[in-house]
Order: sequence, then structure tokens, then C-alpha cells
Amino acid sequence: MTYDLVLYGYWRSSAAYRVRIALNLKGLGYDNRPVHLVRDGGEQHAPAYAAMNPQQMVPCLRDGDRVLTQSLAIMEYLEEVHPEPPLLPADARGRAHARAMAQLVACDVHPLGNLRVLQYLERELGADEAQRGAWSRHWIATGFAALEAMLAGNAATGRFCHGEMPGLADACLVPQVYNARRWKLPLDDYPTIRRIDAACNELEAFRAAAPEAQPDAPQS
Amino acid sequence: MTYDLVLYGYWRSSAAYRVRIALNLKGLGYDNRPVHLVRDGGEQHAPAYAAMNPQQMVPCLRDGDRVLTQSLAIMEYLEEVHPEPPLLPADARGRAHARAMAQLVACDVHPLGNLRVLQYLERELGADEAQRGAWSRHWIATGFAALEAMLAGNAATGRFCHGEMPGLADACLVPQVYNARRWKLPLDDYPTIRRIDAACNELEAFRAAAPEAQPDAPQS
Repeated sequence: MTYDLVLYGYWRSSAAYRVRIALNLKGLGYDNRPVHLVRDGGEQHAPAYAAMNPQQMVPCLRDGDRVLTQSLAIMEYLEEVHPEPPLLPADARGRAHARAMAQLVACDVHPLGNLRVLQYLERELGADEAQRGAWSRHWIATGFAALEAMLAGNAATGRFCHGEMPGLADACLVPQVYNARRWKLPLDDYPTIRRIDAACNELEAFRAAAPEAQPDAPQS
Repeated sequence: MTYDLVLYGYWRSSAAYRVRIALNLKGLGYDNRPVHLVRDGGEQHAPAYAAMNPQQMVPCLRDGDRVLTQSLAIMEYLEEVHPEPPLLPADARGRAHARAMAQLVACDVHPLGNLRVLQYLERELGADEAQRGAWSRHWIATGFAALEAMLAGNAATGRFCHGEMPGLADACLVPQVYNARRWKLPLDDYPTIRRIDAACNELEAFRAAAPEAQPDAPQS
């Protein structure tokens, strides 16, 4: 079966994981085209892929002849073109709060722990594995402390980051919690984050988007 | 004179600079409340500010009793509440492209060169000034190479990042070019970026938002 939507991603990419969640929440089928970020120096640097996405990163979503990049921009596009079920609240204040939580993760946490950044730390600054782990945990912990305060202190927080329906902020939060566990960051200080992560992972839309459920995940 | 909108920012903060541009493009007056990011260990960590914005970062925009954080979320909010003149194109494809360019800067370039990151590199990894400069230039150059390709290869590119009106992507681009100059990154390889930056800086909305035009900029 083929679909109009084609997702270029990688099983463990946090940003691709977000878009998989959003596609699943909206019930949109898509062709999954894995791009191996490590093999052969990184398939994202291959000329054909770089021509499609000059950033040479995943994800990239093709919708017919439209090529879309940047996970948050892709999710906003899906929201505009396929509005139901919504990923964002109906009111401007709620939308701003949900977007701020999503961007806290997508701008201020995730890019610092990206593979290319860890490679630079090792190659150019001689950071060993322990230092790279401490670096990753530091930025996740800093971001999660703020996000926990934003969630715990806002009346709009519900079963999910905003109200009783999962949305944009949850699609960013869950992949970041996955990364936090990978880096063995203790999550005791973030009870609201843990509660929401657990609520999300009860849903098939999130489970089917998980790294280990992807066709390019290693079989072990 | 007092305004409904109150912007907590810092003259040299790239993210605050973006929001100043967006406010000016929309012709919205605002009270400017500088938060000194260095003095006294950083005024953004003061309890009153941290209670308002748990991320302890700038910018933060107050609109009556609404507290808004994250520069991109703030600009989307302004777009929704004050739609004219628009910061985003009218069509979903154009909006996705403009947002992707904005997020390329806001997610994959700017956070890596942030003050707190440079402080960590120095404190924890012993990176000296030359290494911190090389780090900053590396991530700007990587992002600008991709952005230049996105701009040069897209028929929608006009006098500005998208068409003939300045918008969201330009509000992110200009502060990043300012940072690139601060770090003495040669811009020869990015002719489209340089052309758009120059076109933006002909406009009063951009000039009035510039770091050196802010009340908290050092007098020298």
C-alpha cells in the first residue's frame, strides 16, 4: 500500500519520533523511508537527500510535490491541512502555552543532545563518554525542571500537557523522556512529566511511534 | 506612556531581538523591561522573574494577565491576536516553508551559541575563547549553508525570506546574522542571506529592534 505522505526518518531520531506521533494522532497513514544517520557516514548527507533537505537532517515529510522540513513546522502544517483531531488548543492563550512547552523541548533541550553536537564535543573538544553523558543530562534536567514548573503551575494542565487530549507539546515531551531514559537521567524530580509520559504511552498513537516499533530499529 | 504589552528582554538576546522585530512589524507598542543576563549572576534567575518564566530566560511577553514565553510561540500568538500585517504567508505550503526557515535558526543554530551553553563549555569542558568562537562559528556556518540553499532554491524567495513582505523567518534571520558578525564569521558564501539581511535593515521596524538601539545597551 502506498500513501500520499512519505516520512524520511530514523528510528531513534527524536524529531522524527515527534512527527510519527502527530501523524498517528491524526490517523494519517504514511510511507516510512528510513534514513540511516550513522551508516556510511550518514545517509542524510547523500546527494539525493541533501538536495531534498539542505539541512541534511531528519525528519523530512513529502506530501505530493511538497517537501516539508523541521518537525514543528511539519506538525503545524499537518494541523492546518488535517485539522481533526486538533493538536493545538482552540484559544490563542492555550495555543501559545502549548507551543511554548513544545519549543522549550525542541529549541532548548533537544538540539543540544543531537548526534552531530555530541560528535563535535568528542572530536573538537575531546569530551569523553562520561562528559558527553553529563552534558546531555544537564540540558535535559535544566529543561525538565522548567517544564515541570510550567505544567505543575498551570490550571490548563490535564491528563496531558494541555487538557484532556494529547497534542503538540506531548508529541515533543515523550521523545525527550525517551532520550532522558537513554541517558539514565533520574526522573524523580519531574512527577508531572512522568505522569503525562505514562498517559501518552497508553495510547496506540504513541506506542506505534516508538523507536523500537520502527522497521529500521535493530533486532535484538 | 504605558502599554498593554510588556516585553522582558535583553539588548543582545537574539530571541528578544526577534520579538522586538515582530512587535515593530505589527506596529504594536510595548513597555520594554530589560533583564540583565549577566549582572548579579543574571537577573533572569531572580525569584520574581523565575516565578513568571520558569525557564529563567528571555524573552517573556506579558499581555494583560497572559504570560507568554518562547520567541516563536510569542510571534505565533501575535500573529493570531493581531493578524495584520501578517508575519506568515497565506497558504499552508508557504507557511510551512517560512516556519521551517525560522526553526532552522531558532532550533538548530541559535540555542547552540547561547550564553549558558558557552558558559558550560568553558566551565565544564575547559573550552578557551578560541574554541568557543570556533564552536559558535561552526553551528552558524552549518545552518547558514542550509538556509542559503533553501532560499536560493525556492521560487517563493523574494526581497525577503518569503516573498515581498518581511515576516517570521526574517525576524529570526536578522538577529542570527548580527550574531554571525559578532563572531566574525565571513558571510561571503551566503549572498542571499546577506541580501535579505540588508533589505530588512533598511526598514525602521528592524532598525528600531537592533541591540544597539535598546535602552539597556551599553553607551560607548
